[in-house]
Amino acid sequence: MTPSPGRKKRSTILDVATVAGISRGTVSRVLNGEPYVSDEARVAVNKAIKEVGYVPNMAARNLVRQRSQAVGLLIHEPHALFLEDPNIGSIMLGANTVLSQAGYQMVCLIIDSELDVNRIGQYLNGGSIDGAIVISAGENDPITELIEQLAMASAFVGLPPNHRPLPFVSIDNKKAAAEITARLKASGRTQIGMIASALGRAAGADRLAGFEDALGSSYRPELVAMVEHFSFDAGIAGMRELLERCPTIDAVFAASDAVAAGALSVLQRIGRRVPEDIAVVGFDDSVWAQRTNPPLSTVRQPASELGAQAAELVLAQLRGEEINRGGVYLETSIVWRDSA
Amino acid sequence: MTPSPGRKKRSTILDVATVAGISRGTVSRVLNGEPYVSDEARVAVNKAIKEVGYVPNMAARNLVRQRSQAVGLLIHEPHALFLEDPNIGSIMLGANTVLSQAGYQMVCLIIDSELDVNRIGQYLNGGSIDGAIVISAGENDPITELIEQLAMASAFVGLPPNHRPLPFVSIDNKKAAAEITARLKASGRTQIGMIASALGRAAGADRLAGFEDALGSSYRPELVAMVEHFSFDAGIAGMRELLERCPTIDAVFAASDAVAAGALSVLQRIGRRVPEDIAVVGFDDSVWAQRTNPPLSTVRQPASELGAQAAELVLAQLRGEEINRGGVYLETSIVWRDSA
Repeated sequence: MTPSPGRKKRSTILDVATVAGISRGTVSRVLNGEPYVSDEARVAVNKAIKEVGYVPNMAARNLVRQRSQAVGLLIHEPHALFLEDPNIGSIMLGANTVLSQAGYQMVCLIIDSELDVNRIGQYLNGGSIDGAIVISAGENDPITELIEQLAMASAFVGLPPNHRPLPFVSIDNKKAAAEITARLKASGRTQIGMIASALGRAAGADRLAGFEDALGSSYRPELVAMVEHFSFDAGIAGMRELLERCPTIDAVFAASDAVAAGALSVLQRIGRRVPEDIAVVGFDDSVWAQRTNPPLSTVRQPASELGAQAAELVLAQLRGEEINRGGVYLETSIVWRDSA
Repeated sequence: MTPSPGRKKRSTILDVATVAGISRGTVSRVLNGEPYVSDEARVAVNKAIKEVGYVPNMAARNLVRQRSQAVGLLIHEPHALFLEDPNIGSIMLGANTVLSQAGYQMVCLIIDSELDVNRIGQYLNGGSIDGAIVISAGENDPITELIEQLAMASAFVGLPPNHRPLPFVSIDNKKAAAEITARLKASGRTQIGMIASALGRAAGADRLAGFEDALGSSYRPELVAMVEHFSFDAGIAGMRELLERCPTIDAVFAASDAVAAGALSVLQRIGRRVPEDIAVVGFDDSVWAQRTNPPLSTVRQPASELGAQAAELVLAQLRGEEINRGGVYLETSIVWRDSA
């Protein structure tokens, strides 16, 4: 990757050496944690590093150091993901297969608390991994900032937070959501609602935007229930809310299959027939989709391929290749089963 | 841990130094990958290491080296686990919380192919992790052998393969299976079958043993369908097989909740009422259990606690404490819902 235009010129080891009044070789030995460096030199180098704002360039350091031959898979929001989203497993396995064939060890790191954030920062800084694949980072994610600072080889699954110019592999959530909503509309449904989830993440916000786009002038904000997670329980809450606001609702786009499964369980309990009385569609085509009754009409996203291509992006950077900064979008398709 | 009785005395650095005809300090520098060692010395040391069969003692090395402050969570059979078993997420999160609070980075390593096995061997050997938690290792697992050879701090979730005397945290699968089978029998069912899964793993084999024990003289081998995985699809196959062999079957113990969910889907499709015509019970009390229709009667296992206690066991070893070699068993309980 070339530096983005207008980005401040990075300080170099030479800058550190000049400020510290110490040879470049000694600075390098301090940075690499080698023995046989005097404490005085170490102190002077660390002081100079802070003064000039030096951030080690991992790629350059890897040329002189032994690489770790490991790539991290960083997983945010593990509770919601592990317990509700079977896609996470497919993404991990897809990434692992590619990294494994290239001789890299994939190490999955879970980010579940503030403690985790701080410690993973140190882990990344310490050279334990050569690159990182990041799953579902939220806005203002400090780990993302660190990855950018370190200029570490990286790839995001889904859009990077805060529109940072970092490599990513994603599906077009907005387009896919618009497609399945249009299909619901074309089937003759007139009171189409949505259970919108995780609006703090691009995937969640974009699915709502696509829904709104497809309905155009027939979009009714009161037919959107907003829930926090892509989860079964959120689907239950969202469906109840929609039924209360509009008892005659005849179609629901649930933001994920797990959400749709929760919605179906509410409809089943109150005796509302699916799809006769009300149509329900999901998003993901995860294992959920084929196990609900009726099976879900949904958007298929290539989860394993998302992981595989994110791994390829990281490997390309580690080989020093230029990569497309615009990100890679993978195709989705609509799978029409019996729930709509 | 004290070495097991009768175990061959380990070769030491001193043995390597003697055979190589080089000072102990130089051998140590070679082992620690330090610079300023001549190529001749490096070659001689590596030759001597092979000759005396020296395996580095991680605990001893960690005393002189900076520890990695990382603990691996090694996950075998990722396909079956990630895509079907929601317990895996709870185990990971339970372990991560404990390790995180102790200042350790948990790194999850997926073992999905021969390539993975070889590379993870190098990763373990290379000092990248101080200890390992192992999930669902099968018989004759080479990684387990390596962990034992390295005398690495470790804990297995479930029994270690081949009855190796390694630390573990488990539930008593046999006892729990016997309890839920006895409860089925006490409810008046007379033709009780089982869908037995993963018989190559202790958890799978023990659940079948418990089922057999509880039925005693009324155990009928033809009412046991054996399937490969703890999965939904295996449940479908197993249920079909049982119905074919014994159309009047009136109760089924499925080896996991996912298996039970698959069995329920078959019964629903053919119009067999649950629990009126046939009772179905599962094992795990995973999210599956509350989302099937009817909700599953099942065995609750404390998944998050299994992960947490495995992490505690590893930390205790890293602190140099003696630990109970007999393993730790956690309690299970029966949760009776509507499917039986």
